[in-house]
Amino acid sequence: MSRLGLPVPPGFTVSTEACRTFLTTGEEPAGLSAEISRYLSALETTTGRLLGQPDDPLLVSVRSGARFSMPGMMETVLDIGLNDESVLGLAKVSGSERFAWDSYRRLVQMYGTTVMGVDPALFDEAMTLLKAARDASDDLRLDAGDLAWLVETYKRLIRDEAGRDFPQSPAEQLHEAILAVFRSWNAERARLYRRREHIPDDLGTAVTVQRMVFGNLGPDSGSGVAFTRDPATGRPGLYGDYLPNAQGEDVVSGVRDAVALAELEHLDPVSYRRLRDHAQTLERHYRDLCDIEFTIERGTLWMLQTRVGKRTAEAAFAIAAELVEEGLISADEGLARVSGDGLARLMFPRFDSAATGEPLAHGVPASPGAAVGAAVFDSAEAVRRAATGEKVVLVREETTPDDLPGMVAAQAVLTGRGGKTSHAAVVARGMGKVCVCGAQDIAVNGGARRFTTRDGTVIEEGTVVSVDGSAGVVYLGPVPLVASAAMRYLESGEQADSVVCAVGRALDHADAVRRLEVRANADTPEDAARARRFGAQGIGLCRTEHMFLGERRKLVEDMIVARTDTDRDQALAALLPLQRKDFTGLLRAMDGLPVTIRLLDPPLHEFLPERTGLAVRIAAIEAAGGQPEPHDVELLDAVNRMHEENPMLGLRGVRLGLVVPGLVTMQVRAIAEAVVERTRAGGSPQAEIMVPLVGAVEELRLAHEEVTRVLAEVGGETGVTVRCPVGTMIELPRAALTAGRIAEEAEFFSFGTNDLTQTTWGFSRDDVEAAFFSAYLDKGVFAASPFETLDREGVGRLVRIAVEEGRAAHPGLETGVCGEHGGDPESIHFFHATGLDYVSCSPFRVPVARLEAGRATLTGMDASDSR
Amino acid sequence: MSRLGLPVPPGFTVSTEACRTFLTTGEEPAGLSAEISRYLSALETTTGRLLGQPDDPLLVSVRSGARFSMPGMMETVLDIGLNDESVLGLAKVSGSERFAWDSYRRLVQMYGTTVMGVDPALFDEAMTLLKAARDASDDLRLDAGDLAWLVETYKRLIRDEAGRDFPQSPAEQLHEAILAVFRSWNAERARLYRRREHIPDDLGTAVTVQRMVFGNLGPDSGSGVAFTRDPATGRPGLYGDYLPNAQGEDVVSGVRDAVALAELEHLDPVSYRRLRDHAQTLERHYRDLCDIEFTIERGTLWMLQTRVGKRTAEAAFAIAAELVEEGLISADEGLARVSGDGLARLMFPRFDSAATGEPLAHGVPASPGAAVGAAVFDSAEAVRRAATGEKVVLVREETTPDDLPGMVAAQAVLTGRGGKTSHAAVVARGMGKVCVCGAQDIAVNGGARRFTTRDGTVIEEGTVVSVDGSAGVVYLGPVPLVASAAMRYLESGEQADSVVCAVGRALDHADAVRRLEVRANADTPEDAARARRFGAQGIGLCRTEHMFLGERRKLVEDMIVARTDTDRDQALAALLPLQRKDFTGLLRAMDGLPVTIRLLDPPLHEFLPERTGLAVRIAAIEAAGGQPEPHDVELLDAVNRMHEENPMLGLRGVRLGLVVPGLVTMQVRAIAEAVVERTRAGGSPQAEIMVPLVGAVEELRLAHEEVTRVLAEVGGETGVTVRCPVGTMIELPRAALTAGRIAEEAEFFSFGTNDLTQTTWGFSRDDVEAAFFSAYLDKGVFAASPFETLDREGVGRLVRIAVEEGRAAHPGLETGVCGEHGGDPESIHFFHATGLDYVSCSPFRVPVARLEAGRATLTGMDASDSR
Repeated sequence: MSRLGLPVPPGFTVSTEACRTFLTTGEEPAGLSAEISRYLSALETTTGRLLGQPDDPLLVSVRSGARFSMPGMMETVLDIGLNDESVLGLAKVSGSERFAWDSYRRLVQMYGTTVMGVDPALFDEAMTLLKAARDASDDLRLDAGDLAWLVETYKRLIRDEAGRDFPQSPAEQLHEAILAVFRSWNAERARLYRRREHIPDDLGTAVTVQRMVFGNLGPDSGSGVAFTRDPATGRPGLYGDYLPNAQGEDVVSGVRDAVALAELEHLDPVSYRRLRDHAQTLERHYRDLCDIEFTIERGTLWMLQTRVGKRTAEAAFAIAAELVEEGLISADEGLARVSGDGLARLMFPRFDSAATGEPLAHGVPASPGAAVGAAVFDSAEAVRRAATGEKVVLVREETTPDDLPGMVAAQAVLTGRGGKTSHAAVVARGMGKVCVCGAQDIAVNGGARRFTTRDGTVIEEGTVVSVDGSAGVVYLGPVPLVASAAMRYLESGEQADSVVCAVGRALDHADAVRRLEVRANADTPEDAARARRFGAQGIGLCRTEHMFLGERRKLVEDMIVARTDTDRDQALAALLPLQRKDFTGLLRAMDGLPVTIRLLDPPLHEFLPERTGLAVRIAAIEAAGGQPEPHDVELLDAVNRMHEENPMLGLRGVRLGLVVPGLVTMQVRAIAEAVVERTRAGGSPQAEIMVPLVGAVEELRLAHEEVTRVLAEVGGETGVTVRCPVGTMIELPRAALTAGRIAEEAEFFSFGTNDLTQTTWGFSRDDVEAAFFSAYLDKGVFAASPFETLDREGVGRLVRIAVEEGRAAHPGLETGVCGEHGGDPESIHFFHATGLDYVSCSPFRVPVARLEAGRATLTGMDASDSR
Repeated sequence: MSRLGLPVPPGFTVSTEACRTFLTTGEEPAGLSAEISRYLSALETTTGRLLGQPDDPLLVSVRSGARFSMPGMMETVLDIGLNDESVLGLAKVSGSERFAWDSYRRLVQMYGTTVMGVDPALFDEAMTLLKAARDASDDLRLDAGDLAWLVETYKRLIRDEAGRDFPQSPAEQLHEAILAVFRSWNAERARLYRRREHIPDDLGTAVTVQRMVFGNLGPDSGSGVAFTRDPATGRPGLYGDYLPNAQGEDVVSGVRDAVALAELEHLDPVSYRRLRDHAQTLERHYRDLCDIEFTIERGTLWMLQTRVGKRTAEAAFAIAAELVEEGLISADEGLARVSGDGLARLMFPRFDSAATGEPLAHGVPASPGAAVGAAVFDSAEAVRRAATGEKVVLVREETTPDDLPGMVAAQAVLTGRGGKTSHAAVVARGMGKVCVCGAQDIAVNGGARRFTTRDGTVIEEGTVVSVDGSAGVVYLGPVPLVASAAMRYLESGEQADSVVCAVGRALDHADAVRRLEVRANADTPEDAARARRFGAQGIGLCRTEHMFLGERRKLVEDMIVARTDTDRDQALAALLPLQRKDFTGLLRAMDGLPVTIRLLDPPLHEFLPERTGLAVRIAAIEAAGGQPEPHDVELLDAVNRMHEENPMLGLRGVRLGLVVPGLVTMQVRAIAEAVVERTRAGGSPQAEIMVPLVGAVEELRLAHEEVTRVLAEVGGETGVTVRCPVGTMIELPRAALTAGRIAEEAEFFSFGTNDLTQTTWGFSRDDVEAAFFSAYLDKGVFAASPFETLDREGVGRLVRIAVEEGRAAHPGLETGVCGEHGGDPESIHFFHATGLDYVSCSPFRVPVARLEAGRATLTGMDASDSR
């Protein structure tokens, strides 16, 4: 009995300390053997039997007690203590030879793969051959003799492959199994999982050793996995899979099809009722959704393990809202239980139901969402194609932990076998991947790289399919997408279902507790309006370069190729009214809220045609005896003149403003005139002017002087006082390092963490992501791409320096971030801790940022479980 | 009488404080008027006369007392106190109407330009017209009536141009003249001078007001400038120019040709002897070469002003050595008096005397050295051409302070008029520019942009001339260059003259006192050997990329375009013996001293052809119906594949090593095998391996592991233990910010301050220097290019962080710098202060770095005067 009064088999735990020592030093901790012996003696006393004792053996299971894990990720070894002698004893005391040999073959198989490193496919092959010989559809049809033959075959395989025998010593089995579980902490799949989930690599795992209880003792026995609520929707009520006459790993691996847990109510109503009660006890104790592994041994229910359960984003919001409602957790805890990543997933579009045709296949709706991609049939192919930017759907008969890289790379996972608690389903939910599993109406042929539907349609590798993880349906070809319920709610307040209501409650609480303001990066009135609907409290970054493209490109080209001041002034004058209109629209959409407008930033040749292409075109015309367009020749001349080896590090940002006469004046005038227009129309325009790429206070001072002069001019001409705060992007290391001086000239700092990351690390995003980021992630140089999650140690240190020294020099200096990190949950927590005033992100990330800005205030509340 | 017993006219000084307040606030300090009045009253009491008193006026001069100045840079106003009335009184008491009107026209002219901003050319024009009318060759031929006419003309010019009258109030004259001197601190030429000399802009200037003594009272009067030693060679003995019947500014401006000071011995032996005695007194007091302004008024010598004098590099070394010899200064002070910049100038090549043809012209050898450039005839043209990289020689009849930008831009200055103390000569010496002045055998016609030699040769603008500033000779066309005496000394120890001996003594003392080691950046055995002769204590940076060029390019191309591991391994294997040979040679040349070898750093496409050129060539062949070379097509494919938008921020440095299999192994093996070869040959090879562009400790750890593995392999194969310290370049902001962690894996740090400057400021040297550096220098964003002198505030802060945190984490960590700043004097002082162990620079800068590393230890000794 556990301390909660639950029926738990007796056992003991080997501490995480021992694991850490083992993994760090590569050697067994000195006292480990003695510790295991001591614990084991106690267990033997409790159970009155000795491990592997020939006549009536004590058998144990060994599994990871890691909190940060998921089913199937860490190794498990069951039935330890069996050997050529004790298997006979077990047969005798259990009264079932078949059971004893079934258990022994499980041990030899698990031990062979887990401890001795034999390829599991070899064991599977032997099993398949035997089943074929016996014409058996599943392992239940095999008798004791068959299983004994399997044990011998497996042992021979081990001897051939591992070069030593399967150990007959129960103590050695136990000891080695414990070390194998330790070792599995560093397996590739575990490392990959932790990197995705931002779990530190040095935690290590505890190991739980328990007396075996047997689900394979006949039809009145079985094993199952249960959730205290539906992990896909969050709906209350026991939920899961059950497999009669089986041990636990059969359920997760999907070797046989499990039945829905509801069936257990008919098969064994007493155990079912008990399980339901125990589930309630656990949920109340952990105050959260729990997953449970259990076994029924000849009608007796045993609880083996429980963890706070993985769930979909929908379920996370729904469960948090209900637990708050039920008074089990506070509103703060409810907020800690949901996440921005989850909210972002809820905002993904869904398939347009009007546009879906005839389904290809149906399966279990294991992880919701809509995904479109090319069907691929193994993990390596998924990774390979995804690396080129292709979207893929991983199709497998069933997944194993080795498929993890492919699942990470894929948009969705589709399996032919397995239920809601199968490996594919659990892992996909944890990652927020779309998943349909157990689609029994398709036949997956991985070797031939295709699957066949019931009506004989053959889907070859590369064919695009659409997977609806919410409905459990697969369609041929790409299906158009529509807004999700969460998106409709955020856009219009429409409360379509309870999940959306839960989202609303979480956001309301986040807004109530957060300190960080949330603004949006938006360049058009449409984007600004959407951002405002999403709750943005202003525009943190309006990039004016987008306003230089499209049909205005010709005017911009004229400005660039101008050879006289007059020509350039003319081109600038033509741009002025257009820019004014841009700003008027933005200020109208954000009336009353701050709109931070960044002066032109990119190098001018970005507005000219690509150099090599243009040169080749002209050369080809000339070589063929033709006459190239004079305008093209003029353009090529300008492109060559302005060509830069490293445009990112060239004439751009404030440098451009200081070197190209009239440019800053034109932009500032457009802003000032827009402010005047909006003021006269009765609005409350709050424009702020941001000078990009400043590295030295003198640059900002010169730009600031020009801004002040133009604002005063426009004020004088119109009689309307134009007051625009002037600030700067902090996006160069030198700006951060001299922030104390720069703050003298700045009313605000906005951290451009994209560029700051590029210069701090010395790599350009365009060039390096494809070239070596995946290698760096593999080698562990990065835990996450520094363009996605702020590098706290390097870039973050600069941010901290700049905030501290900027504020010290200029109390009241406003600080924010407008790089993409402004919408990244982990980075938002850092910005909160660093004391910034706001984050600014793309309009679609605004709700995410609001939520995470709220969560960031809940320090000390560990929210990583529910991520 | 001054405190040294010298005859100095009585006067007073307005403090620098007042100037600073005036320049900062733009307003007169509150107490200034009162202060001037009080001082003036005291002076009036002392002299027994009142300023501008009609019958017997007290007249005063106003000039800058700035220590950091040079003749002609700051404004001076003489003869203050004269007006329409007092000029008559002066005529009466002096007994010379001509003198009185000459003094008055000087006041009106100087006051008109300096205080009232009238273009000086207008006054010159009037004078020229008058002289032509009187057929007078110089102003001495003009009589009192002429001069009275000039005064009226000048006053009218002032009224027309400035819109107000020349003030008759002596008090107003004094007050305004003082403010004008204040203001001249911020004149363009003063700012430019200070920027060149690294003098802070906020010092401000004191103003000296003195009772006038008159050099224009007749043939027994005169003004002169004297040096206590020859400022060109350092030879002891009074040296300078004297102009009878003139006021001081005539000497500097060169309006009449001065006579050599030696002439004064005949003209006025008593004054000459006194001047010589006073010069000795001053030199002994200041313990340095002094320049002196003096005036003789009717046979009485007055000392007006003295400053530590500007001198050539030759003179600086010679004087320092002699003063040490004479026991006037210590060896430390002697070292403080010379500079690395001066030494570098002495190392410049000289003209090959065997190759010089017939001289075009002879003049005064005012500032030594050899320069070749296109003749240009005004400052603007010099600046324009120099900006495009052309070398120019500025040719002027005489220079004025307004020519300063052109002098900065030019290689040499050539003037038709003026002696060794003329503006051109003094300024050129201060800047270390080659100068020949007073070349009376040429006629300079600036308006027509040409000069004509005595034999009628016409030299048009743009013609290349060679100027020998040591011999005072100009040649047509470029004359070939040979090593200077200093260079021969450094290369071979040959002591050609006393200057070279003085250089030797300064270097010896520097070596004795310096803490910083000096190493060289060298990639070939020849460079290494030269560096060693120059005193390098090892190689701080061997760049291996140079070893990938030339005839090896084909092998490198093969490595890059390789599509299989086998092809690439083959190409690498072919490079291995060549690299080994490179390293063997280097280690032989530097036997016993450390040789730091940097693994391949640049992006691989640097070894491929330029993209646009190749694409155009192929497109042209194809468009003409031809068939391009298959190798070219293959290359273009590789170039396109490896093209990067920002190669500086791309796949290079350690990234390359981690991504291109076999590259690091090949290079490390070549190093290790070279070490083995040298060890077996009885040498003492001290190779160190440097990993470039590290941003995170994990990168270095991975590279370090590979290095360790290969060293062990080679050790195992050869039986020779290969021990090479492994370290890293600190050249990314992130490396500096995480230096504490990186130091865990590094045995040394070498600061790559070129790249660190690029990433800290976010600009690439290739792209920005031409695009906006000159604008930034003009606008005062930089005091000096951060690529030449280390930016202490930004880049320097990172260096400090990295040294402190690196050493804290890894005591004994060796630190050095191998960017170009390692040879820059000011930067070397910073590196000394920051506690680095060594600097490494190009072989030719090694003696400079030795000298400056020595000088850096002399803290508190202000060496800026002798720069």
